[in-house]
Amino acid sequence: MATELLEEKSVQAATIMQQAQEAFDSYKKAGAAVKAAFLQQIAASIESYREVLVATAQEETHLPLPRLNGEISRTTGQLQLFANVLLEGSWVEAAIDMADDTRTPARPDIRKMKVPSGPVIVFGASNFPFAFSTAGGDTASALAAGCSVVIKAHPAHEKTSNLVYKAIEEAIQKSNLHQHVVQHVSDKGNALAKALVQHEHAAAVGFTGSLAGGKAIWQYANERACPIPVFAEMSSINPVVLFPDKLQQQPAQLAQLYAASITAGMGQFCTNPGLLLAVKGEGFQLFLQHLGEEIGKVAPQPMLHEGIYCNWQRASEEILQQQKVEIVVQSAQQATGICPLPVIAKVPAATFIQNGVLKEEVFGPLSLVVECEDVHELKQALQQVKGQLTTTLMATEKDLEQFTDIIALQQSLAGRIIINSVPTGVEVCAAMVHGGPFPATTDARFTSVGSSAIQRWVRPLCFQGFPDALLPDELKNSNPLHIWRIVNNQLTNSAL
Amino acid sequence: MATELLEEKSVQAATIMQQAQEAFDSYKKAGAAVKAAFLQQIAASIESYREVLVATAQEETHLPLPRLNGEISRTTGQLQLFANVLLEGSWVEAAIDMADDTRTPARPDIRKMKVPSGPVIVFGASNFPFAFSTAGGDTASALAAGCSVVIKAHPAHEKTSNLVYKAIEEAIQKSNLHQHVVQHVSDKGNALAKALVQHEHAAAVGFTGSLAGGKAIWQYANERACPIPVFAEMSSINPVVLFPDKLQQQPAQLAQLYAASITAGMGQFCTNPGLLLAVKGEGFQLFLQHLGEEIGKVAPQPMLHEGIYCNWQRASEEILQQQKVEIVVQSAQQATGICPLPVIAKVPAATFIQNGVLKEEVFGPLSLVVECEDVHELKQALQQVKGQLTTTLMATEKDLEQFTDIIALQQSLAGRIIINSVPTGVEVCAAMVHGGPFPATTDARFTSVGSSAIQRWVRPLCFQGFPDALLPDELKNSNPLHIWRIVNNQLTNSAL
Repeated sequence: MATELLEEKSVQAATIMQQAQEAFDSYKKAGAAVKAAFLQQIAASIESYREVLVATAQEETHLPLPRLNGEISRTTGQLQLFANVLLEGSWVEAAIDMADDTRTPARPDIRKMKVPSGPVIVFGASNFPFAFSTAGGDTASALAAGCSVVIKAHPAHEKTSNLVYKAIEEAIQKSNLHQHVVQHVSDKGNALAKALVQHEHAAAVGFTGSLAGGKAIWQYANERACPIPVFAEMSSINPVVLFPDKLQQQPAQLAQLYAASITAGMGQFCTNPGLLLAVKGEGFQLFLQHLGEEIGKVAPQPMLHEGIYCNWQRASEEILQQQKVEIVVQSAQQATGICPLPVIAKVPAATFIQNGVLKEEVFGPLSLVVECEDVHELKQALQQVKGQLTTTLMATEKDLEQFTDIIALQQSLAGRIIINSVPTGVEVCAAMVHGGPFPATTDARFTSVGSSAIQRWVRPLCFQGFPDALLPDELKNSNPLHIWRIVNNQLTNSAL
Repeated sequence: MATELLEEKSVQAATIMQQAQEAFDSYKKAGAAVKAAFLQQIAASIESYREVLVATAQEETHLPLPRLNGEISRTTGQLQLFANVLLEGSWVEAAIDMADDTRTPARPDIRKMKVPSGPVIVFGASNFPFAFSTAGGDTASALAAGCSVVIKAHPAHEKTSNLVYKAIEEAIQKSNLHQHVVQHVSDKGNALAKALVQHEHAAAVGFTGSLAGGKAIWQYANERACPIPVFAEMSSINPVVLFPDKLQQQPAQLAQLYAASITAGMGQFCTNPGLLLAVKGEGFQLFLQHLGEEIGKVAPQPMLHEGIYCNWQRASEEILQQQKVEIVVQSAQQATGICPLPVIAKVPAATFIQNGVLKEEVFGPLSLVVECEDVHELKQALQQVKGQLTTTLMATEKDLEQFTDIIALQQSLAGRIIINSVPTGVEVCAAMVHGGPFPATTDARFTSVGSSAIQRWVRPLCFQGFPDALLPDELKNSNPLHIWRIVNNQLTNSAL
């Protein structure tokens, strides 16, 4: 990059981050009720723009209207979820150990709770213009935590992002909050992103996108004099194990279920089942045959944008050119424009185990079926797979009893393990984990979906010997917020 | 390092980590009661060796007997604390969102809990041969989490470490656990440490020591193909603000309190108050005079080992040679062997603000007093301080009312904030935070002391659509462990 450009972006980033820090210093003092009302106001504001938002997003992303409408509802639902998390209040994990003057030496009064980390940088995702972008889960959870937010619009849907930001701006005004509590920036390249992440006021980063993009941002953060946490959700092929008895019993049903999951959203989901593992035999043959029939029927839809389509072409061709990889079926429909033809390929497990290329994510409707000689080889193949967001097992009761070692292996691979369903479809709830061991994410200890996502933007702070009046409400003796707290090692929602 | 040496250490590390992985695969299945009994067995085993442990540690570390006896009690107390955490059970943060067939689409059954990450590498600390070393807080919390542990003995107290490991080995045998659930290694250099941290089976690292050491280990971890979390507690000067009214009211009492804290353990605590900030004036002069008298009385004790003493000499001389730094007082006693003379130095705030050297930790009994023209300059000086484990304010009610902005600034600096006491003395309890923003630690989101320290060694795992029989006990419908769980967004310890 030219030095001049870097200089310019660095000056721009400094202004933005100074504003973000000032907004943080103001916003972090807001109580739970104020922050909850703000999140609800953003949701209402987005709802008031629903029609134009959907139309703009459709133009920019080619996603179908019902999907975009559903995604807006998911987005406002997430904002409401975090408002509820704030109003319930136990997310601060308050703990109180009261003073004990009878002990030698006397024990002081010690209390702790989670406090916001500081300004957060959020990168919009290409595949979810609403739910993982401008006012998506990262922004909603960071604002709930008490952080100010700087959003970098995804270049592929900047108009949509600008519109969502307009809705956020209205909510800021109506809520009488610091005008820079949420800021919105655009940049075609990486220079501004790097300058923002490396600015001393940046406290954490949220990212959903490619492995290359996530690793670059993680690298920027680690180059800092003071490193900061990066929550990048990057890459997952979501291995599905089709166990022998299940495959024998229901080859057609499995094929139908998985054809739909593989081609949902033209394979542009982080949880797309990109890898299926099974032992060869009659059930396997029938499954492939039915899968072929189902995939053949799928009408291609345009991908999100031309760049993603070009990447898909390049990446899927690379897979298909590998030795011993053979195409099982490709959609029988006519390809046009940036519409990919969904494709299923097959490879012997022995080849899969040796070849690293076959273990990389292909973003789009390609799934690789690994044909194993026996269950032992299937386990070997699975052992070669890197960290994942999800892993699934399709199994009868007989399978579940028989293959406990493979199920244990699956539990060590991913953040979510699913029995007899599909990995696509990520519920927004308290028990969800949308995360997993590297390279699925940069930090397997956290989730980016569900109420626990708020924990990414906080750190614990301990107050020792504080007079009651100076403590935050969450830690006061009277428990004015009526939250659950651990008091002298006992969980209680009573006052002291 | 010679290639041959690296090769040899790498082979050694591979054997150790293979054993650690096998032990993990066995130990992670142990229930809460088994793990709790194991921790209690380690505590009992250490207790049975108390006399020889204390004698050996005294020989190696020069720490006084009462201190070492106290530290053994702290160590066995920590093991008991984590046994209690296991028996209480809510640390797994179980959450259950039950299926809802009436919704379109139907909502699946989703449950999550924390599961152990894998084999953990623990580095013994020089300044706590028991409580932060072989069977210290890192080992106790990692074993409680269900991880196997590889301990690298601190070279300065290897005999003590070997003896503690002998106690652990006996506990492993008595508990009928995998023989490699805890392993113990020694190495004079860094080669084995690097090979262990970079081995693919290593899942996380715990370290307490110097900034250089912590950063090196963090770097090893980030060079891996698959990075892992490093919890390094590295460097803190624990700034203490002496507010004007308090200084005016109680200069002698403050001096007495702080002389004791500064020289406790010859300044060899992570929480040693290395920096005091105050506004000049009559109270300030009286405080310095009294502090001088108190420090003058302190009898020098030997430091932990010669290397630390040499570092202290070099680092304290570097501070004292800086422009405008002047010695306020030095112990009037006679220096002998590796006994340092406690020293208090003074510097104008304007100089402190400019000079980076003055903001670095000096491990030993040196504290720097920053003399400020006014409270505004005090705030400016405090703004230049990096992330800390603790920060303290000595204040009257009048001060507390007046200086809310400085108190807010202090809250952003550290993991623990203390009013009207000293930072030395770290309670082992639920509400403790022994951690803080970089460079105090590599990860401000976690604590290395107290029951929450267990959270460093786990990640959340989500189970979707699992039959009850296949779920871990923590997530079963009947709640056989009677633990607190979030069920459909409500906290409860009942069965479903």
